[in-house]
Amino acid sequence: MKTISTCISPQLLPLHTLENKVAIVVDILRATSSMITAFAYDVVSITPVPTLADCRMLKEQGFVTAGERGGHKVDGFDLGNSPFEFMDHQLNGKDLAFTTTNGSQAILSVVNARNVLLGSFLNLSATADFLLQQNESVLILCAGWKGKFNIEDTLYAGALAGLLQDDFAYEDDATLAAASLYEQASSDLLAYLKKGSHAQRLEGFENHRDLEFCIKMDQFNLNAIYRDGRLYKV
Amino acid sequence: MKTISTCISPQLLPLHTLENKVAIVVDILRATSSMITAFAYDVVSITPVPTLADCRMLKEQGFVTAGERGGHKVDGFDLGNSPFEFMDHQLNGKDLAFTTTNGSQAILSVVNARNVLLGSFLNLSATADFLLQQNESVLILCAGWKGKFNIEDTLYAGALAGLLQDDFAYEDDATLAAASLYEQASSDLLAYLKKGSHAQRLEGFENHRDLEFCIKMDQFNLNAIYRDGRLYKV
Repeated sequence: MKTISTCISPQLLPLHTLENKVAIVVDILRATSSMITAFAYDVVSITPVPTLADCRMLKEQGFVTAGERGGHKVDGFDLGNSPFEFMDHQLNGKDLAFTTTNGSQAILSVVNARNVLLGSFLNLSATADFLLQQNESVLILCAGWKGKFNIEDTLYAGALAGLLQDDFAYEDDATLAAASLYEQASSDLLAYLKKGSHAQRLEGFENHRDLEFCIKMDQFNLNAIYRDGRLYKV
Repeated sequence: MKTISTCISPQLLPLHTLENKVAIVVDILRATSSMITAFAYDVVSITPVPTLADCRMLKEQGFVTAGERGGHKVDGFDLGNSPFEFMDHQLNGKDLAFTTTNGSQAILSVVNARNVLLGSFLNLSATADFLLQQNESVLILCAGWKGKFNIEDTLYAGALAGLLQDDFAYEDDATLAAASLYEQASSDLLAYLKKGSHAQRLEGFENHRDLEFCIKMDQFNLNAIYRDGRLYKV
């Protein structure tokens, strides 16, 4: 039987195997939610890069630069890390270079998996459908917050595990716990997340709007997959 | 306000601060449960050591040796790691040297905290009472399983957090999640834990008996505290 496992922090990734697995990278607040939104608005590709300098170098090659450090837009970048900034039809046909504190690093850490997809509530069912139709086991990598466990990425892991449970065995306790947490929180995800540390860090109207958007289910019927340095829509 | 935080794996400990904190080390299956049981049977001290060789050296100095590797008793050791082995009045007055795969290592990793106590369901309320009566913030270190998240240690963290919630603020998402999981699982902890990977590893009658015992609440009204290389009963 195919299995599903959950790595609750990139720092624990060395304890997991990527071999023959599909890695789902999730950074709900906000990198992977924003990237999925960008694909819904028809960007051609997103190149995740580790540093601001990498991003700026790609800008010289015509890329649109996006990302954050410490939750804030970066000086000189075209876009920040709010999904609302990517709801722009002028992005149609563009290539993005993207760097964030947690999310883009997490993507780069699993590029040796058989496949790498992005996870977000915005395209949850599309991702579940993709995984149900292929024959690989799944590793969900939660980007976390500076290496620590965070609640929103774990809840996504639980939501995805729940959709896969008939076809995949839970391989570890983290998946079991995530599924339990999601079961408990799903009736009012927003209220639950507001108790979390990240939601508390994202203070103010703009950020509250981001949070509300990033937990909307199945807004977009698409997946983002990694190939040779870039993410593409499938 | 005093705070409570939870480190769900020793590998994430560098992300936490120990300064001015009381560290509660928990390895429900079975190191800390067995150590608390040993103190209930009046051992004088327990010296946690990292290696089998350390343990054997202390045996030459008159210590009783205890521990496991891979869940099994070690050749030549006096005792294994089942709490039932420590329910022996002949241990009254003895000094133990203890080494386990996860638990003893976890204790040694937090010795720079202001205080180090052992956590187990067997003395849960005694630990909560100790923490409520002192003025330091708390870090719960889950020993985990070979560095990974495990469910039984996390459920203990949630149980302790629940008892402290009126006096301590939850500092991180891991504590929030642990408290939620415990709330969900507490009505039938045994059934919940049987879904976990560790319980599945602990197959057979002996191990099932251990699991059932290790989740009994408040069997012993004592704490174990670390001082200069050894744990003592307080």
